[in-house]
Amino acid sequence: MATTAAPSPAQPLSESSLARISAALDGRWAERRRASRTVCTEPDLVSVPGLSVADHRARVLAAIGELANRGEVQRAFPARLGGADDPGGNIAGFEELIVADPSVQIKAGVQWGLFGAAVLHLGTAHHHDELLPGIMSLAVPGAFAMTETGHGSDVASIGTTATYDPDSQEFVIHTPHRGAWKDYLGNAAQHGVAAVVFAQLVTGGVNHGVHAFYVPLRDTDGERDERGDLPMLPGVTSEDDGVKGGLNGIDNGRLAFDHVRIPRTNLLDRYGQVAPDGEYSSPIASPGRRFFTMLSTLVQGRVSLDGASAVVSKMALAIAIRYAEQRRQFTGADPDVETVLMDYGTHRRRLLPLLARTYAVQLLHNDLLERFHGVFSGEHDTDSDREDLETLAAAAKPLSTWHALETLQTCREACGGAGFLAANRLVGLRADMDVYATFEGDNTVLLQLVGKRLLTDYGRSTAKMDVAGQARWVAERAGDMALHRTPLRRASQSIRDWGSRARSAEELRDPAVQRELLEDRVETMVEEIALRLRPTHKASAAEKAAAFDANQAELVEAARAHGELLQWESFTGALESITDSDAKRVLVWLRDLFALTTIERHLAWYVVNGRLSAQRARTVTSYVERLLLRIRPYAGQLVDAFGYGPEHLRAEIATAAEGERQAEAMAYARARRASGEAPVAEKDLVRRSGSTQTPREAAAAPA
Amino acid sequence: MATTAAPSPAQPLSESSLARISAALDGRWAERRRASRTVCTEPDLVSVPGLSVADHRARVLAAIGELANRGEVQRAFPARLGGADDPGGNIAGFEELIVADPSVQIKAGVQWGLFGAAVLHLGTAHHHDELLPGIMSLAVPGAFAMTETGHGSDVASIGTTATYDPDSQEFVIHTPHRGAWKDYLGNAAQHGVAAVVFAQLVTGGVNHGVHAFYVPLRDTDGERDERGDLPMLPGVTSEDDGVKGGLNGIDNGRLAFDHVRIPRTNLLDRYGQVAPDGEYSSPIASPGRRFFTMLSTLVQGRVSLDGASAVVSKMALAIAIRYAEQRRQFTGADPDVETVLMDYGTHRRRLLPLLARTYAVQLLHNDLLERFHGVFSGEHDTDSDREDLETLAAAAKPLSTWHALETLQTCREACGGAGFLAANRLVGLRADMDVYATFEGDNTVLLQLVGKRLLTDYGRSTAKMDVAGQARWVAERAGDMALHRTPLRRASQSIRDWGSRARSAEELRDPAVQRELLEDRVETMVEEIALRLRPTHKASAAEKAAAFDANQAELVEAARAHGELLQWESFTGALESITDSDAKRVLVWLRDLFALTTIERHLAWYVVNGRLSAQRARTVTSYVERLLLRIRPYAGQLVDAFGYGPEHLRAEIATAAEGERQAEAMAYARARRASGEAPVAEKDLVRRSGSTQTPREAAAAPA
Repeated sequence: MATTAAPSPAQPLSESSLARISAALDGRWAERRRASRTVCTEPDLVSVPGLSVADHRARVLAAIGELANRGEVQRAFPARLGGADDPGGNIAGFEELIVADPSVQIKAGVQWGLFGAAVLHLGTAHHHDELLPGIMSLAVPGAFAMTETGHGSDVASIGTTATYDPDSQEFVIHTPHRGAWKDYLGNAAQHGVAAVVFAQLVTGGVNHGVHAFYVPLRDTDGERDERGDLPMLPGVTSEDDGVKGGLNGIDNGRLAFDHVRIPRTNLLDRYGQVAPDGEYSSPIASPGRRFFTMLSTLVQGRVSLDGASAVVSKMALAIAIRYAEQRRQFTGADPDVETVLMDYGTHRRRLLPLLARTYAVQLLHNDLLERFHGVFSGEHDTDSDREDLETLAAAAKPLSTWHALETLQTCREACGGAGFLAANRLVGLRADMDVYATFEGDNTVLLQLVGKRLLTDYGRSTAKMDVAGQARWVAERAGDMALHRTPLRRASQSIRDWGSRARSAEELRDPAVQRELLEDRVETMVEEIALRLRPTHKASAAEKAAAFDANQAELVEAARAHGELLQWESFTGALESITDSDAKRVLVWLRDLFALTTIERHLAWYVVNGRLSAQRARTVTSYVERLLLRIRPYAGQLVDAFGYGPEHLRAEIATAAEGERQAEAMAYARARRASGEAPVAEKDLVRRSGSTQTPREAAAAPA
Repeated sequence: MATTAAPSPAQPLSESSLARISAALDGRWAERRRASRTVCTEPDLVSVPGLSVADHRARVLAAIGELANRGEVQRAFPARLGGADDPGGNIAGFEELIVADPSVQIKAGVQWGLFGAAVLHLGTAHHHDELLPGIMSLAVPGAFAMTETGHGSDVASIGTTATYDPDSQEFVIHTPHRGAWKDYLGNAAQHGVAAVVFAQLVTGGVNHGVHAFYVPLRDTDGERDERGDLPMLPGVTSEDDGVKGGLNGIDNGRLAFDHVRIPRTNLLDRYGQVAPDGEYSSPIASPGRRFFTMLSTLVQGRVSLDGASAVVSKMALAIAIRYAEQRRQFTGADPDVETVLMDYGTHRRRLLPLLARTYAVQLLHNDLLERFHGVFSGEHDTDSDREDLETLAAAAKPLSTWHALETLQTCREACGGAGFLAANRLVGLRADMDVYATFEGDNTVLLQLVGKRLLTDYGRSTAKMDVAGQARWVAERAGDMALHRTPLRRASQSIRDWGSRARSAEELRDPAVQRELLEDRVETMVEEIALRLRPTHKASAAEKAAAFDANQAELVEAARAHGELLQWESFTGALESITDSDAKRVLVWLRDLFALTTIERHLAWYVVNGRLSAQRARTVTSYVERLLLRIRPYAGQLVDAFGYGPEHLRAEIATAAEGERQAEAMAYARARRASGEAPVAEKDLVRRSGSTQTPREAAAAPA
């Protein structure tokens, strides 16, 4: 029915326009992405619904062995050891592994992105030479033993100890109580023969805080048990985490250590060394800074989950939109032709804003990955580069992982019962993605970190600037479209001078207005929280804690708003590089849809705070509806640009099958009508002949 | 840290106050609910994570056999056949089966709530006598073959035909094309030996629309194949739907019929009869009304999913809140004591509004179930009772099923990694609940039905009333707290005279103000849509369709708002019956929290439409924050009132285990400090002695 509501038939985008959009989405490492995507169609790598946990684990172990053999997963490691010193390209390829099976991706991530990366970034040359070859080849599968049952997000408080014994020149790794068991570790339940274990380093009666140690777990010379596992080494105990909500191809488990001794040299000692006599030294004097520096080397986990979330959101929308372009249900204006789902107002409203946000997520991710590569390749590796990278990753990952869950669920529901079948992928991907919201940093905790950074920046900027400085700073930023030079752009109420534009301008589609609205919200929220927290500077610790707690939920909201601003900036930045005018026109609509649906979601804030008049607020929704109609004819092409074909999606409903079924049904109905054998509908008879006749009499009456 | 932010230590509710709350939640059939809940702890009935699909299916078939033997599931059937003529009590007990395993619930629902209920409600005495005993005992497992691959929500358009052959006095059941295969049917892949098949009834060249037929599927005398399945009868084909996103204990599958002949008497003929000579007759002249009457007998599916969603939301919150009361993470004001999760502002914000809404969902469900019982027991069974019941169920089920998914996911995330383990139930329940959002009526489609009803009522009320009538109608309703006498309470802009109270009154906690705000929004939205659709009365079909499409998303929003109003009314109605003042005080806060967070979610609407001033809108959020602090001390008791103990939840984190781990860790730290063996933290040394000493020298220095 809504075909008539759409504007006059839209010209499809040309192949070259589409290619330009694909190039923007796939970014700097497009070739790596596409190569990895192709590998992910290999029959031995792809997920198989309904496997038992044991079979799935065995299959995934074999799959990552295959990836190791092909050299797909070692590009971040040093070239001298067979890697490529290519951190960005490595992550780009890694992110696409989710196409095969999220368990394959995360098992690979445990081995090379966590276990191997810890040896690389926290160890020194001799660790690299001795340990990395076995890790890179998967000869030595390993666990990353940071999280404990009792401590997830609060890594600084873990209970495992590594106490130095100068007599034997060994560390004694020990689990003092049940809460200090390492938990949720991939490779811990079955396959890991070693682990990087995080523990409180104690030497000479001093606790120097959390450090990482290389600890053998299983006896590689021992005899495998009935399920094929090597025996544990003395003092090491493993427990299986059992069935999980997803990612069941990975053998997550728990580890405990009972006074397990390892050589002194197994301390991964880049940021903290212990001499044979037990003397501790570190290039970083502050224990706090040292801790955060060590943890910051592991940011790639968050970066790559952000990218994987973009990939999976693209896959979900490709499945649901291709199905919605074929699937028909209920008739509209024409009683003989059922309407395709994509032409329903509710369907557009459910799917197209997610499509727009998926573009934003991918484009922010591309910028994040560039930054990551800059830091880890050493090209842009100052303290502030690292700090910005961490804040950016902490803002991007929660938004993208939650977005992926929302997208998968909405797409699943939009496909009805067909969406619930494992054969159509959506439910399996959703189950696997679930934990992305809490691992590698709980989303809520990460947003609190971002919020604290915003508060700190606010404090810095107001403390350091005089009025003239503030004015200059604003002037500098007014025309500045560059990405997140600093997370916080404006500093104080007194310099908020753009507020009038949104109220007076005709056009919510003016990017300057969109930017102003998104930016203003972050900054005002941060400023208000800062003001509310200020009176507590002389307060007791308990009062300060209470005040912070009272503002915690809003701080998280401010961090989320900051992430949305970053997404908008990346989307807008990407538009600048697109010269193809057709592609640009459609992408500008999509960016506008992203901006306007984001503003719509927070509309109460804008109206309550006087940023939008009630009148203008009403136009937000009507402009969104207009954009949905404009974009609708391009929905299919906008998911084609993602580059995922049936061979990647492996979902029957994302092939031509549904269209063929519809065509068959329509052909059947046509043939019946033509044959004259089709029965007359009772309601048509009743209409024609009144209700005094029986239906049979009516049928017998001449038409 | 937030313990200090909470009001002075709250007095816990007494046991009798708690019992009063439980009684309100468990409603009229509390005894049935509690008995069913107890049965659901039996070892043979409960879910076992990680079973293969084959083993899970076999286990669930055995489980429902056990339920049949115990007489737990037949209460809706006639007493003369061993039932209890107790539709309400039957559903109350059925809803609790989800405690054991959602697959057990839904498999039971397929057998007795769909297959059996269709025979009961669409068949006549001879069907009851011949068929119900086998169905009730599970001697005859059966499928409910309504949905087709090509048609889910649009049942009227199904393609399967049942053509009457007067010569043999048989119906010929036929599947004319692939899209007309029956699909997603429980019991179709393996266990069903018969089915109620919905097909277009054709006799004498006339299609009388969709009717239900009893059709044998499998040869009960045949030899079972290697997976234990009976052979299909000639002309019947079955396909397995394979692995699903959840509910894998049920053998969903597809069925096709190739000119399968069944006796004339297998037509379930309560609403449409075919005489031996082929003459069709029906007690309902209008084919449309006849169709909707037949479908309306199946409303219990929606009613019971609504109740099951309430149950599962209660279970999820019991798990997450009990864990959050024990689990500690990060230190606050006191550096030696970590904060329990429930004392974090973000945790309160995430969980307590869901707790309030869960109460609202349960209490609306109780009213819905009363209505259902009234209609199906025959106590209140007019056409308008049935129509109201259907609208109410169509409004309640989408809100409650989506609420359950949101609650399960939020609870899962709030429990971190522990929440992702199958052993803690949340992920399994979520996977199973997923499809509740689209089966028994796609949520979005159901809300459209509600929206259309609201539009119709709006049209009726404005058409029939003169100004004096409107004034009288308003006056009647002003003091009327009775539940949804009609879905639409006020008719036109001119009689909107309460608007001032919300702007002037001090108190958003005044229930009259809350009601006004919630009610006003529904009615204004409906009115606006009606006005926008009015100009199309003389428009072409295509223009009308386009106009409707353009308003479809907002109509769904209006229906949702209507559902929220109903929830609020039921919650408020339940408060009236509670005389215990302590229980009432806490429940009023909870109702207020439900009302205020609902209003907060739609705050933009209220401000943009002038119902709340910007100033008052700000107080909504601050009042919510106050309520969260007030309710927080009762969070544990408010989930205790649900009546689900560890034996029902079967989640380790909802036992005392986490508290014991925390106690062990704290005892260890205390003992270490007391022994003098605890290492000194480096950062404390640095603070005490400056940074010129090495840590070791500092450790050696006198404290």
